[in-house]
Amino acid sequence: MTASAAPGPADPVAAGGPGRPADLLITGCTALVHDEEERVRFVEGAAIVVRDGLIADVTTADAVAGLDAVERIDARGQAALPGLVNCHTHAPMVALRGVAEDLPVEEWFNDHIWPIESNLGARDVELGASLACAELIRGGVTTFADHYFAMDTVADVVADTGLRALLGQAYFSSQGPEGRAASLDFALRRAGDADGRVTTCLAPHAPYTVDDTDLAATADLAREHGLPVHLHAAESRDQTEHSLARHGATPIEILRRTGLLDVDVLIAHGTGIVDRDRAALAAATGRVAVASAPRGYLKFAWDPTPVRLLAELGIPVGLATDGAASNNSLDVWESMALTALVQKSATGDPRWLTSRQALHHATLQSARAVGLGDAIGSLAPGRRADVVLVDLSGPHTQPVHDLAATLVHSARSADVTTTIVDGRVLMRDRKLLTVDVPAVVGELTERLPGLVERGHGRRIQEYDA
Amino acid sequence: MTASAAPGPADPVAAGGPGRPADLLITGCTALVHDEEERVRFVEGAAIVVRDGLIADVTTADAVAGLDAVERIDARGQAALPGLVNCHTHAPMVALRGVAEDLPVEEWFNDHIWPIESNLGARDVELGASLACAELIRGGVTTFADHYFAMDTVADVVADTGLRALLGQAYFSSQGPEGRAASLDFALRRAGDADGRVTTCLAPHAPYTVDDTDLAATADLAREHGLPVHLHAAESRDQTEHSLARHGATPIEILRRTGLLDVDVLIAHGTGIVDRDRAALAAATGRVAVASAPRGYLKFAWDPTPVRLLAELGIPVGLATDGAASNNSLDVWESMALTALVQKSATGDPRWLTSRQALHHATLQSARAVGLGDAIGSLAPGRRADVVLVDLSGPHTQPVHDLAATLVHSARSADVTTTIVDGRVLMRDRKLLTVDVPAVVGELTERLPGLVERGHGRRIQEYDA
Repeated sequence: MTASAAPGPADPVAAGGPGRPADLLITGCTALVHDEEERVRFVEGAAIVVRDGLIADVTTADAVAGLDAVERIDARGQAALPGLVNCHTHAPMVALRGVAEDLPVEEWFNDHIWPIESNLGARDVELGASLACAELIRGGVTTFADHYFAMDTVADVVADTGLRALLGQAYFSSQGPEGRAASLDFALRRAGDADGRVTTCLAPHAPYTVDDTDLAATADLAREHGLPVHLHAAESRDQTEHSLARHGATPIEILRRTGLLDVDVLIAHGTGIVDRDRAALAAATGRVAVASAPRGYLKFAWDPTPVRLLAELGIPVGLATDGAASNNSLDVWESMALTALVQKSATGDPRWLTSRQALHHATLQSARAVGLGDAIGSLAPGRRADVVLVDLSGPHTQPVHDLAATLVHSARSADVTTTIVDGRVLMRDRKLLTVDVPAVVGELTERLPGLVERGHGRRIQEYDA
Repeated sequence: MTASAAPGPADPVAAGGPGRPADLLITGCTALVHDEEERVRFVEGAAIVVRDGLIADVTTADAVAGLDAVERIDARGQAALPGLVNCHTHAPMVALRGVAEDLPVEEWFNDHIWPIESNLGARDVELGASLACAELIRGGVTTFADHYFAMDTVADVVADTGLRALLGQAYFSSQGPEGRAASLDFALRRAGDADGRVTTCLAPHAPYTVDDTDLAATADLAREHGLPVHLHAAESRDQTEHSLARHGATPIEILRRTGLLDVDVLIAHGTGIVDRDRAALAAATGRVAVASAPRGYLKFAWDPTPVRLLAELGIPVGLATDGAASNNSLDVWESMALTALVQKSATGDPRWLTSRQALHHATLQSARAVGLGDAIGSLAPGRRADVVLVDLSGPHTQPVHDLAATLVHSARSADVTTTIVDGRVLMRDRKLLTVDVPAVVGELTERLPGLVERGHGRRIQEYDA
């Protein structure tokens, strides 16, 4: 039993006192909690009390005996974890899952994805985002950071499906000042939507598609409006080398000189972050985080995100999947396992990136990456009640000698039985409660022939410039 | 529609003629078949007719209209694949899943696994093997190659659970001639057990634990009795370098000079196979195959199996998981995805090891690796009726633009709904029909405290010698 899981709420106001009924009471689970040093600990036979969308208490069966609750979940044989966070995706791109395979990134994007992507209408985006939310909920994800176009549609889908999201309307310099203005307009207009589950950011595409003037203007807007920034940068080692050759600076150094490291910034991928970037990153005055989507890096034959270097600098690395058009999946559970596996392989050190470290990335580091480090990412009183329950009874997760290893290396996303956001159950016993998948798939499938027509496609950019 | 899936059986004897009822009739699925060049093809709206444990026909709904069947499966919305093959595992080691984590291989084995492993009694092996079979069946595996001790117990479990297996009783030279004799005795005594589902082999542990004299004697026995050999060799690059320093020959060259490449041999891992080994492998007169278990190689920070080099030599590479004590899982579906991903990454070529290549490894190459290249590995008339059905309706597998990519990169082992061996349904709608998992887990869990006692442990070998 740790301090953060000790019986009795840390905040009596949130808990409402022992007499007040719980909105939701989860009993009998093994709860993943963090101790004062943020080490992952497990509390057996735990009870989780939820009131007003918050975790009121993580305590014992005895402490909740006789407590009334509007809704109850008997979670014996299951682990309770903070909901997973997908720190970088393009949800609507699930519509293009598998449409262009086994290709280098430039050919994949310019010859296949962009010509199709530029066909997407608002209804396609809505259907794609709905399907993505279904996949996320089924995989135990409770929050996602989306960087895409038609973000008002995505925000509506987030409101409907019950997820939490950090949303940013993407823009290129090629759109002129209107792109940046639309991104700001979206961010200001939709922040706090869906009962506060929607947070927003500015979303320039990347240093190779947004020029220095626009990046600096974005940093100014971020500071002026207190908004975070989410962008692609140093996606691959090739990008870093091209940037050095063309601009005399790495993508990270460009972020530095345009002021983007002095605001809260979420950098997608960062597999091209190099030793030379240590100085720029160490000098950052903003909250800098990196989102890592390891499956796609293997698929494109990119290097992995240098997690060890970033850990040395104290920069959180959140887990992500990127869009399903490249990654084929929004499976953050897999990202967690691959982060452990690939980091061992890349560093040549089997002791590095243990299961407990992977769980720390999946919880607190991911929460910080999306700017919600105090609100989610831990099962602790006062945090939002974003909880997933994981079945441990399958033959592939037994016996349990080390629950951290079981979760990271033996369990799979399909073992998530129950997904809860703000105390609302979005999936129970594998049944989705807020998305009608057959209806969404049916309509999307009907629209596919028009969607994949590529006749009007044109190259808009060099992907590794 | 391809030749191998054309309406009408290739072998009228196997089919029994249109008038004879089927034992099992699967309808409405999309069947994975191979064309004459072994390319993967998909037949929509397929019907699979099973009689006497064999596939009698892969045909259309029209062709089976009015056909009587003892058992029927409506598989609309599902893909039918040849059952997966786990080409190298140590099934009973699931009992030690997660017991020693995040360690280099030598420390993992000598300080943790072996001291515990040498505690295992026959009942522990039986329980472990039963749990492993449950996991394999749930993951769509219909055949596994097991290399372990107490193989009579494993053979009994295979008979009970309904799986197919290639079994070999492991031995070290340190056991004296009795080890090799016991391996031969097992192989001769149990071959053909379980209605022919058990095949057997000789199972020397590895060139660093079995000396050249014993390896040569093993090759002689294999030739004399027509038995294949299954052993660990060139497990890591370090092993290859140590072998060169100590013996002036790589592990593969040792296999060559002891005659083991002139019999049918299944080499586990082979991540230490190097360019220099091309000559020895090219000169082999036996059927040589390699089993690759990519998850464990990432975890131990080993190189991947050089699949491209082996492909150039025409050597089949089968998919495997190794034991769950290192791999944490017997998930061959994951091995299929990781083989595609890791090979792209390791070769730096996103075009290499496409989804269709991965499916070829998972089907015909794996079947060949376990010596069953003519009996399993393809949904074709005359082959054993080892079939798995995979649900494609989940949000994570929709929409389907490219079914090969969907299967390899979006689907997961948990999407397997139905597992069939020799026409017998071992799992239906995710329900296991031949293993009582709660009973097995209950007894195994009671035995764990005695199992993990390590007081008497001793180092028996250098793992990378």
